[in-house]
Amino acid sequence: MGNERLVIIGGVAAGMSAASAARRIDARMEIVVLERGTAVSYGACGLPYFVAGRLERAEDLVVHTAEFFRNERGIDVRPEHEVTQIEPARKLVHALANGSQPVTIGYDRLVLATGGEPTIEISGSNRPNVFTLNDLAHGVRLRDFLDRERPLHAVIVGSSYIGLEATDAFAGRGIEVTMLERSTEVLAGIEPEIRDRVEAVLHAHGVALHKHSEACVISGAPGGPATAVEYGNGTRGGTGIATDFVLLATGLRPRTGLATNAGVGLGQSGAIGVDERMRTNESGIYAAGDCAETVQLVSGRPTYFPLGTTANKQGRVAGENAAGGDAKFAGIVGTLMTQVFELGIARTGLSVAQAREAGFAPAQITITGATRAQYFGGKPHVVTLIWDSSDGRLLGCQMAGEDGAAKRIDAAAVALHARMRLPDMLHLDLAYAPPFATVWDPLLIAVHEAHKKWKHGG
Amino acid sequence: MGNERLVIIGGVAAGMSAASAARRIDARMEIVVLERGTAVSYGACGLPYFVAGRLERAEDLVVHTAEFFRNERGIDVRPEHEVTQIEPARKLVHALANGSQPVTIGYDRLVLATGGEPTIEISGSNRPNVFTLNDLAHGVRLRDFLDRERPLHAVIVGSSYIGLEATDAFAGRGIEVTMLERSTEVLAGIEPEIRDRVEAVLHAHGVALHKHSEACVISGAPGGPATAVEYGNGTRGGTGIATDFVLLATGLRPRTGLATNAGVGLGQSGAIGVDERMRTNESGIYAAGDCAETVQLVSGRPTYFPLGTTANKQGRVAGENAAGGDAKFAGIVGTLMTQVFELGIARTGLSVAQAREAGFAPAQITITGATRAQYFGGKPHVVTLIWDSSDGRLLGCQMAGEDGAAKRIDAAAVALHARMRLPDMLHLDLAYAPPFATVWDPLLIAVHEAHKKWKHGG
Repeated sequence: MGNERLVIIGGVAAGMSAASAARRIDARMEIVVLERGTAVSYGACGLPYFVAGRLERAEDLVVHTAEFFRNERGIDVRPEHEVTQIEPARKLVHALANGSQPVTIGYDRLVLATGGEPTIEISGSNRPNVFTLNDLAHGVRLRDFLDRERPLHAVIVGSSYIGLEATDAFAGRGIEVTMLERSTEVLAGIEPEIRDRVEAVLHAHGVALHKHSEACVISGAPGGPATAVEYGNGTRGGTGIATDFVLLATGLRPRTGLATNAGVGLGQSGAIGVDERMRTNESGIYAAGDCAETVQLVSGRPTYFPLGTTANKQGRVAGENAAGGDAKFAGIVGTLMTQVFELGIARTGLSVAQAREAGFAPAQITITGATRAQYFGGKPHVVTLIWDSSDGRLLGCQMAGEDGAAKRIDAAAVALHARMRLPDMLHLDLAYAPPFATVWDPLLIAVHEAHKKWKHGG
Repeated sequence: MGNERLVIIGGVAAGMSAASAARRIDARMEIVVLERGTAVSYGACGLPYFVAGRLERAEDLVVHTAEFFRNERGIDVRPEHEVTQIEPARKLVHALANGSQPVTIGYDRLVLATGGEPTIEISGSNRPNVFTLNDLAHGVRLRDFLDRERPLHAVIVGSSYIGLEATDAFAGRGIEVTMLERSTEVLAGIEPEIRDRVEAVLHAHGVALHKHSEACVISGAPGGPATAVEYGNGTRGGTGIATDFVLLATGLRPRTGLATNAGVGLGQSGAIGVDERMRTNESGIYAAGDCAETVQLVSGRPTYFPLGTTANKQGRVAGENAAGGDAKFAGIVGTLMTQVFELGIARTGLSVAQAREAGFAPAQITITGATRAQYFGGKPHVVTLIWDSSDGRLLGCQMAGEDGAAKRIDAAAVALHARMRLPDMLHLDLAYAPPFATVWDPLLIAVHEAHKKWKHGG
């Protein structure tokens, strides 16, 4: 009897984590990775920095090449293999190699790591100078365009994290940016005081932010490049803004077509439903990464929260289990971080609105501390805390500050994992030295204020 | 009947925190602070940076002046009041004002915030160019000496955190530094891999580190300045090293004379014994800060761990309770951070030796990750994890790295507060963005390696 075969669909974060994890568990298992694109194992979170020109070559985002996986780990990585169908009954995967050549592969275990895709619902988004920034091919296409065309003006549709990072990248290349955000607020899920900081830094860097402005039509000559984006306040038509190119950054949705066609069930969030072993409803089929659902541990509810960190963890767990291991991934607390110009912002846990929707009775405060001692050039560090006013349980934390202070969100993230209440957090023994911090850490100042408010019934 | 009177002995971190906390609880209570020195409410942790010249004036270390406390908070701060005796039976405090004028003050509640003092046990340490760096007066004396004498060579006795920070400060002023460390290791309680980084950075900056070298005699002309330090390997006499001045940085001990003379009991650690409300054994007398004991929450044992962060917390709790509130301070997990040249180092929890002594069965691993993405100039970030091999409980964590990464110790500190085990930490949702971090945080890499070792019985 031959060795069992694991087939993995998708070779970026979740897929290659699954492959490597499976190999660590089982040295002999046959592992085949089918990837649509030409590159595998790259850090998609670095794409805005590649577009900015901080990395010279797209290959610098690649952690390991297909050759590395083949030669060093005995993993059969096949780029440019687009899977077209899964047949769970026969345990077969059908693919098109290099765009035309049909291939069929049998599997004993299957990991779906098909990723996410941009949510595009705007007329004209197929024009040649309209971009997204969700995979390496997109990034290369955009970077080539910027290098070749030297455009002077961009319209970014959506104020997601990628939209903000792209704003920074474009501005660094001397491109004037107009950002259109459908809602009245940038960065859904970010509380007002943090959002104000983001808007202030965008303003300071000359970004034209149009809120409550829904892009409706990307216009231009028939079949030609986009020359303007028309937008309105909830109504079709409206104002048009001329531009040299367009970036769509309205968010991701899970790529689930292959799964649903094969009878793999979706969860409440619309992403592929998985248990904590990353098993789908189909025997022997696992899912991980941006195509899969996860549990928000603070609310206990399934959610779709596509991020590289989660993809790597889920991929590892799926790979271990697919190779006969027994790993679990309980879920996330919802930690996110980004940089917009000099400002770092981060969040973890639930926003006030999310907390209310999940049945909590949220209360919040915001304080402004400092990133370090004044004589070390300390800068303002804004902390928002969100807790349940019934029992004082921490529900969320958000931060904005320079000097890398956004990474301090981790202390709050661990507190959320531990289901800490405000009284448990009053005297957290956080590190202090003047070059790095203040004697009362801003998080502790926030906890203290929150605790005071909570004791008075808030 | 008049208002009650709270007397606080000591007006630095713990004392002034107690005074302010008491005032917030009780707007009318009479609050008197007796401080030996001329300044109150200063950040002693900033002294090395004042000596380095990063702060122009000593006053820049002062958070609030005595006038501020008097005028804004109605707190009667009396600098240059050295308390000579406490009479608990009569609830009296005797002091000498301005070095000679006897003063007696009655109290209803008393907070002891008498601080710590350098552990000096070397002959010749009273020579005029021998310094310590534990209070503002010492700092001013040393800074004046450096500005005036422009010395070329320093001997630092002891490799405590203050010794390391002073090394950095002196080197920045062009002073050649020789450091004498009694034991075979710098920085007691720091594990080998982290210590190696510290020694490497000292070496790279030209610091002559003599380990296993106990300073015995600070020599010079009779009554004159020190011109050399004689040291040996455990034996009296030995090698002498010529120097222009000496800094003693062998650590702190609690200043407890006033307390013990008044019948206030010491704890196992030799510092003033307190419960979690910061009450001593004497009714109405509280203690806080560098004179007081605290509980190491990981081991559950009383310890002496004098730090500004703890002093502020204990002071606040003592002040609240002395004013009729009901606050508790459970203890510390032992978090410390410092910078030595470009290297940040931090620790939290127990060292391997401390864990063994506390009855655990410690195991450890060390990994080297990166502070951020390589294309953002990521630098090595070393993480040591210590856990109990019986149940996988996290016991300690230590870090060394540039870019402010030492502050990431906070995530481990919160995990210690929450008594997390390695399996609980495998998938901590820590923040990632290329400018600030790597997709697998070094702490998670360390947890993963530790978990693997632990599952295999280590």
